[in-house]
Amino acid sequence: MSNKKGRVFSGARPTGRQHLGNYLGAIKNYVALQDEYNCVYCIVDVHALTTVETTQNLRQNTIEMALDWLAAGIRPEESIVFIQSHVPEVMELHTYLSMVTPLGKLTDLPTFKEKIRLHPNNVNYGLVGYPVLMSADILLYRASAVPVGVDQAPHIEFARETVRSFNFRYNCDVLVEPQMKITQVPKVIGIDGVQKMSKSLDNHIEIAATAEETQKRVMQMVTDPQRQRRSDPGNPDVCNVFSFHKIFSTPEEVEMVNTECRKAGIGCVDCKKMLAKNLNASLAPFRARRAELEKDTDAVWDVLMDGAKRARVIAEETMTDVRQAIGLP
Amino acid sequence: MSNKKGRVFSGARPTGRQHLGNYLGAIKNYVALQDEYNCVYCIVDVHALTTVETTQNLRQNTIEMALDWLAAGIRPEESIVFIQSHVPEVMELHTYLSMVTPLGKLTDLPTFKEKIRLHPNNVNYGLVGYPVLMSADILLYRASAVPVGVDQAPHIEFARETVRSFNFRYNCDVLVEPQMKITQVPKVIGIDGVQKMSKSLDNHIEIAATAEETQKRVMQMVTDPQRQRRSDPGNPDVCNVFSFHKIFSTPEEVEMVNTECRKAGIGCVDCKKMLAKNLNASLAPFRARRAELEKDTDAVWDVLMDGAKRARVIAEETMTDVRQAIGLP
Repeated sequence: MSNKKGRVFSGARPTGRQHLGNYLGAIKNYVALQDEYNCVYCIVDVHALTTVETTQNLRQNTIEMALDWLAAGIRPEESIVFIQSHVPEVMELHTYLSMVTPLGKLTDLPTFKEKIRLHPNNVNYGLVGYPVLMSADILLYRASAVPVGVDQAPHIEFARETVRSFNFRYNCDVLVEPQMKITQVPKVIGIDGVQKMSKSLDNHIEIAATAEETQKRVMQMVTDPQRQRRSDPGNPDVCNVFSFHKIFSTPEEVEMVNTECRKAGIGCVDCKKMLAKNLNASLAPFRARRAELEKDTDAVWDVLMDGAKRARVIAEETMTDVRQAIGLP
Repeated sequence: MSNKKGRVFSGARPTGRQHLGNYLGAIKNYVALQDEYNCVYCIVDVHALTTVETTQNLRQNTIEMALDWLAAGIRPEESIVFIQSHVPEVMELHTYLSMVTPLGKLTDLPTFKEKIRLHPNNVNYGLVGYPVLMSADILLYRASAVPVGVDQAPHIEFARETVRSFNFRYNCDVLVEPQMKITQVPKVIGIDGVQKMSKSLDNHIEIAATAEETQKRVMQMVTDPQRQRRSDPGNPDVCNVFSFHKIFSTPEEVEMVNTECRKAGIGCVDCKKMLAKNLNASLAPFRARRAELEKDTDAVWDVLMDGAKRARVIAEETMTDVRQAIGLP
C-alpha cells in the first residue's frame, strides 16, 4: 500500500457489455492506474436511476460490465471493485452534502442544462442532484485523485467546492479535496464515422463480441466519404478505420495503409479486413479470460460483494468523522 | 400489537426544551395516540440541517426534547422513539424517491416558497428536497397514519403521490400510502398575545420551566388590549390568558373569570396568578418525572439508541423490498 501514490476513485454507469470507446477511454486507464494507485472502481447503479426509466436490465448490465472490467485486467484482490448501491453510506453523505449545496449552483451547471435537453420529461429532483451524488462518491472514499476527461473537469471542481463548503460550514477538515487527473484519451468515433462511439447510437463494437461479429461491424465502418470507388484515392486523415489502425495495427501496417490508401493501392475492404484481424488478435486474450469468468458468474458477484465490504470499511470511517463534524447527536 | 389500529409516524425537529405550544399541539396527542396505535416518534435532526447554520446545540436540543417527550408520557418500551440520523436508511430511501419526484413539484409547493422567504440566503439543494425526506420518514416505516395539523396536509398528500409515483414506476406495491389523521389542536398563541407560540419569537413558556419562571412568564402575558385600567371591564373572548384558563383551569374558575372580567370584578394580575397556579399544578407531575429522568441522561440516550435499533429492523425490511422493486443488482 505504502509505495502507492494515493487513492483513485472512478465510477461508471452499468451500461452492459463495454465497447471499444469504453475500453480505450476508460478501462485501459483503470487497468494502468492500478500500478501507481490504490484504486476504487464503482459501478454506479444509483446514478443510472436519475435517467433510466426502466430498470429491468440493471442487474444484467452490471454483471456484463463487471465481466469486462475483470477480464480487461482490473485486479479485484488489489483494487476495490463494487456496486454503488451496496454502500448506502454514499446516499447518507449525499444527503448531508445537499445541505451545503446551493440549488442555483446545480441548475447553473452546463451538464445539467444538457441533461434537461436530453430528458425534458424527466427532470426529477435526483437528476438535479447528480453532481452532489458524484461528489459523495469521491469524498466518501477520500480519493486523492480522480481520472477524468477534460469534459468532466467541472464535476471535479464542483466536488472540490463542496469539500470547501462542508469543511467551512462545520469548521473541520474531514473531507478531502480530490485532485483532477486529466487523462488524455483518444476520442473514439463509432462505425458511422461521425459520432462518438455509443451503445445508444448503435455505432459501437463490443469488446466481448465474437471475432465474426467484430469483423461484421468493422466491415460496416464508414470510411473517407470522398472515396466512392475502389480506384479513387483515399485520405486516411479523415478515415475512422485508419484511426483504429493506429491503435491496433503495427507501425509497418499503419505506414503501408497511409501510403497505399492515398494512391488507391489498397481498397477499403482489404483495409478493414486487416483491421478486423488485428482487432481480434488484440482482444483475443481478453476474450479468453472473459469466457473463463463467464463460466462462474456467481464468483464475479462474490467479487463485487467482497469489494462492497471493503469499500464500506472506508465509508464508515469517513461517515463517523462526518457525523461528528456536523455535530449530529 | 394486534389489537391496535396500525402504525403512526410523526417527527419533530430537535428544538430543545418544549413549550406549551409544542405540548398542546403535538406531545399531548403523541401520548394519547399510543393507546390506539403502534407509534413511531422521531427526532428529525437531518431535517434541522436544511435550515440550521450552526449545529453546536443539536445534541443538547435533542436530549432536552427527548426528556420532555418521555416525561410527558411517551412510553419507549411500547412506542419507538429515536433520532432520525441513527437510521441512515431514511437517506437511502430519500435518494431513491428523489428519482421519481419532479423538481417542479417541489419548487411549486407553498411551503417551499415560504421557506425561501425565510431563508433567502440559504436555498440549498437539501432544503428543496425537504418534502422528499419527509416522505421517506413516513414511508420507511410504512406508517398507516400520520397525525397532522391542517396546514401540513399538503405534505402528506405529497407523500401519497410519491408512493403512487414509485409504485407505478417500478410496477410494485412495496410502498404504502399513509392516511392523514387530521388532529384538531388549539392554536397556541404566545405571551405576546398575537403570534403563534414559538421559541424563536421568545414568546413561549417552557413546560419544563420552574414554577417561578412559569409565573413570571404568565405575568408578562398580554391580555385584552382595550382593558387599560383595573377598573375597565375586559373581554375574555380576545384575551389569551382566558384561552389558557379554558385548558388549565376548572370549569367553575373559567365561568368565574368569564363573568367577573367583563364587569371588572377580577383584575388581570389576579387572573394571571390563578392561571400560573393552575398551570404549575397541571405540569407538576410532568416536572417531577422530568427531574427524575434528568438525573440519568445516559439512560435517555440508551432509550434513543434502543429505539433506533428497533426502527432499523422495520427500515431494513422496507429497504430490502424497495431495492428489489427498483431492480438494483
